[in-house]
Amino acid sequence: MTLISFLGPKGTFTHEAASMVSDELIPYCTIPAVLESVANGECSYGVVPIENSIEGPVGITLDSLAHKFDLKIFKEIIIPINQNLIVNPGCTMEDIEDVYSHAQALAQCQEFVSRNKIQPHYAVSTARAAKDIIGCNSKAAIGNAKIVELYGLEILKSNIQDMDNNETRFVVVSKKQHEKTGKDKTSIIFSIYEDKPGGLYKILGIFQKNNINLTKIESRPSKKGLGKYLFFVDFNGHIEDDLVKEILDEIEENTYYLKILGSFPEF
Amino acid sequence: MTLISFLGPKGTFTHEAASMVSDELIPYCTIPAVLESVANGECSYGVVPIENSIEGPVGITLDSLAHKFDLKIFKEIIIPINQNLIVNPGCTMEDIEDVYSHAQALAQCQEFVSRNKIQPHYAVSTARAAKDIIGCNSKAAIGNAKIVELYGLEILKSNIQDMDNNETRFVVVSKKQHEKTGKDKTSIIFSIYEDKPGGLYKILGIFQKNNINLTKIESRPSKKGLGKYLFFVDFNGHIEDDLVKEILDEIEENTYYLKILGSFPEF
Repeated sequence: MTLISFLGPKGTFTHEAASMVSDELIPYCTIPAVLESVANGECSYGVVPIENSIEGPVGITLDSLAHKFDLKIFKEIIIPINQNLIVNPGCTMEDIEDVYSHAQALAQCQEFVSRNKIQPHYAVSTARAAKDIIGCNSKAAIGNAKIVELYGLEILKSNIQDMDNNETRFVVVSKKQHEKTGKDKTSIIFSIYEDKPGGLYKILGIFQKNNINLTKIESRPSKKGLGKYLFFVDFNGHIEDDLVKEILDEIEENTYYLKILGSFPEF
Repeated sequence: MTLISFLGPKGTFTHEAASMVSDELIPYCTIPAVLESVANGECSYGVVPIENSIEGPVGITLDSLAHKFDLKIFKEIIIPINQNLIVNPGCTMEDIEDVYSHAQALAQCQEFVSRNKIQPHYAVSTARAAKDIIGCNSKAAIGNAKIVELYGLEILKSNIQDMDNNETRFVVVSKKQHEKTGKDKTSIIFSIYEDKPGGLYKILGIFQKNNINLTKIESRPSKKGLGKYLFFVDFNGHIEDDLVKEILDEIEENTYYLKILGSFPEF
């Protein structure tokens, strides 16, 4: 049996993404715990969020993949995020004084929360927030529609996020490399020499001259001081392509640090 | 009298940074509220965090400066972040079951928290966390050392952050542009045409050929969909320098969107 871990509890958006891969799912309570379960062989795959189109990268996922674990990105899953105001059965907007959710979900619904003059509070996850409001009629939670079935709650308002185009990209991590499919992306992390200006320019030039399209570029602090970065880049192509091999060799020669997070089929 | 707003409450790291500018300080409870107080003229300056060397950019500050307000960065302040485990007087590690703090502070002390098997909980700010634990001997907060005097608490352990090099950069925003000092930085935001590959490469090339050093480059989602970014770049020079003017003209010709956040003295 292939066990798959995910960032739980049940009823989160990560649970929704993981359900697209398998039904044999085991929830873990933090992103590093999911990654650890794959690294130590307890699970074959793990599902964690990596970026949201509105709020940006999930720092702990990027940092863990860069610094703590040697895992491959095996697959990506993109799902639209529709946030809902979840309440106890029969409650109306007049009843609600406080709202609980994960910091990213609250950030995505800032305008709704301030327009309705309800007090925001942080919870560890959207699902935990829903669990915590059970029986408290002045409290609401923000989260995935699927949670209401789990806890006997109701959706009072749906699609309360401030902006359209709200989608989250999740990655399925594994110790294995995904085989080539012909429509793949490759994900790498690198840092440039600090004493050589123009380092990032040089790396981007390698992609440019080979007509390789970057589908993502993110900077994260290298944790060595302000202004020192790791760059997370995704580009079209598979690590078994000759051109990709050549490019990676040239990048390695021009970077201080290079880590290949793997090649995987485009979603 | 020059009024200065800051991200409160009193006793946060932002309060410490703002105290380096003035004593006439007014706390506001969110980053957008601080920026709004400057935009509407209630205050002449506002102080907010913009990036941490370990946890990365403060998304809400970058997004608010990009999308919501037309303000200048007038000054930057960098302070080292030393996190402390704050408890009620006389409490020891054996008493502590739960710890409260801002999500970024908890993220900075992850290893300490999990090594000591205490349960983390999110609070709106480090100062609010300290206020909330008063009188509860099984609870601790993580935050700035100065908070203990405000609330009659004690520091049980100091410097509990996981990594050295932990510093936060704050910006003082204003409607005014800072005059040239000779050792300045300029901060800009731009987005590139999505249908033209190599756009970022071209912009970095403008800096490269003019021997201008980038002191920061961050990507943030443009909020128009995954893979579409705004780039936040800081570089050496003042907007009144002829070379900087020429560079900005050339960047404007090659970007879809350009916003100049101002020039300010290097810290």
